[in-house]
Amino acid sequence: MARITINEIARRCGVSKGAVSYALNGRPGVSDETRERILKVARELGWAPNWTARMLSGSRTEAFGLVLTRNPRVLGSEPFFMELISGIESVLSERSYALLLQVTADLDAELDTYRKWNSERRVDGVILVDLRVDDPRIPLLHKLDLPVLCIGDPGLAAGFPAVWTDDATAMINAVDYLVGLGHRKIGRVSGTADHGQVGIRGEAFRGACERAGVEPMIADSDFSAEAGRTATRELITADDPPTAVLYDNDIMAVAGLSTCLELGVTVPDQVSLLAWDDSSLCQITHPSLSAMSHDVMAYGAHAARRMFEVLEGTATGAYLDSVPTLTERDSTRPPP
Amino acid sequence: MARITINEIARRCGVSKGAVSYALNGRPGVSDETRERILKVARELGWAPNWTARMLSGSRTEAFGLVLTRNPRVLGSEPFFMELISGIESVLSERSYALLLQVTADLDAELDTYRKWNSERRVDGVILVDLRVDDPRIPLLHKLDLPVLCIGDPGLAAGFPAVWTDDATAMINAVDYLVGLGHRKIGRVSGTADHGQVGIRGEAFRGACERAGVEPMIADSDFSAEAGRTATRELITADDPPTAVLYDNDIMAVAGLSTCLELGVTVPDQVSLLAWDDSSLCQITHPSLSAMSHDVMAYGAHAARRMFEVLEGTATGAYLDSVPTLTERDSTRPPP
Repeated sequence: MARITINEIARRCGVSKGAVSYALNGRPGVSDETRERILKVARELGWAPNWTARMLSGSRTEAFGLVLTRNPRVLGSEPFFMELISGIESVLSERSYALLLQVTADLDAELDTYRKWNSERRVDGVILVDLRVDDPRIPLLHKLDLPVLCIGDPGLAAGFPAVWTDDATAMINAVDYLVGLGHRKIGRVSGTADHGQVGIRGEAFRGACERAGVEPMIADSDFSAEAGRTATRELITADDPPTAVLYDNDIMAVAGLSTCLELGVTVPDQVSLLAWDDSSLCQITHPSLSAMSHDVMAYGAHAARRMFEVLEGTATGAYLDSVPTLTERDSTRPPP
Repeated sequence: MARITINEIARRCGVSKGAVSYALNGRPGVSDETRERILKVARELGWAPNWTARMLSGSRTEAFGLVLTRNPRVLGSEPFFMELISGIESVLSERSYALLLQVTADLDAELDTYRKWNSERRVDGVILVDLRVDDPRIPLLHKLDLPVLCIGDPGLAAGFPAVWTDDATAMINAVDYLVGLGHRKIGRVSGTADHGQVGIRGEAFRGACERAGVEPMIADSDFSAEAGRTATRELITADDPPTAVLYDNDIMAVAGLSTCLELGVTVPDQVSLLAWDDSSLCQITHPSLSAMSHDVMAYGAHAARRMFEVLEGTATGAYLDSVPTLTERDSTRPPP
């Protein structure tokens, strides 16, 4: 970083050049509050940590870090993460990079992992997933000197480079499709409530229903098969049940299909089901599941390529990966 | 290691003590052939590399390595590995260990990964999965100075500590169960042919069929949904089709169920299906799938605990994790 910039940051923050240097290099000697203020101004001025120099100096770890804060049992059955990881790996392996993976029970443990990886220089960068509303990982990672690439909506990434799918547009298209089929009451089985992406889809869902003049009905869930089953039962056994149900992933939709069959409700004759993500699971059920599809492996591969660009200093913005599109199969029809 | 043992190894091998030291410490100075001979004798005498000392000296990486040589698309849809990894992580995270994961296209790339991890001290140990017949990874890992824990049959682990499931016994029980229901022609959709575990199950399958006087019919597959579908079609549309089909994992069984429905063949009235591994997938199909069940997450957790014991020098043998047991659900009945 040019000296003039350190001077400029110091001037704007009203602190010494030494304090700026301490803050930018992640060393003690300044208060957390001052550090945050300095980093904020530095980023506004276009400062980026000199990761490329570190890479060139040979102190690379040749690993990226990924922390998953999810119930391990749910992780095991949801295709999304294994597909995402496979996609990330497909790019990493070309460059002999590995993925340092940690599954943690809660966000506090996830924060501890980043602190440790940062202080021990265990990874060249971290890939952040499952962005939350008011995500505590964001301010921590802004303080740490770790390159970060977010997988998720730029509105949640708070200035970090992000690779994202436009779920709001996809959700509007999904609702419009079901309305076009003639559905007038549409259910939604949502994922974990504090995930920002779930909120974005939920808002788009309610807005699209309102504009189309159809009634929304929401059952909260948590991405697991079990909760998907419970939520489906809640919707289908209501006094005035929806004639179509939209799911936030595929495993919940598969569980929902099974629940309908158990309840003696025929898919798609009596109720239409529409999944999200669209792993091969959706193709091997009977009837096969219509879904809002995107290529999750390609999404992971895209993120991995951008992570390398973040290290090189060439990726700093938001990169739209895709707008999930409708794949029509046998689980969606006009209402009875 | 006591000096007497170095003397003893040198005496038995007819080499100098220096050569033994070179070989045991993974340093150059002896031919590959001599190194292998020395390591073989050393292991026979109960020698174990002094990993504990290295751990105590603080040169730990606090990571274990896992390489998966599988088609990334198949990895994404098969619950087994994500469940296994989740189980491994559940133990690692308690000790703030991470898993260094690499997905490689073929075994050569996997071998390169171990060489790199070994020379760069990237991991404290490696967990080896998908053991092959005449597995080229085994001799390489015997040469390298990396602690190894195999997940798989001890007969394939060639002296490395192993955590395993008794699939031969489970397969015999599976066949006996189907024979007990009255089936006289039993199909098998097998996993990837060069996996040792697939061979062990195949041999047990043929033996059990022979003893029971029933006809086996085998369709080779590769653990993927797509190949499971093709193999099921091959069996079901044969002139004299089997009345029961056994699968080597759950995703192929789910695909098989869907294939039967497409062909207008009713499960279980016309054909019984029996899955293996038993993730939650088997419970969310309709009809639900009977399966040879084992707790894959617990299997991964068990392996991770043993990996720590390998480092400590206290795990050196074969540890039976479980014999998969029958979970009877709605996909198995007497033949029509």
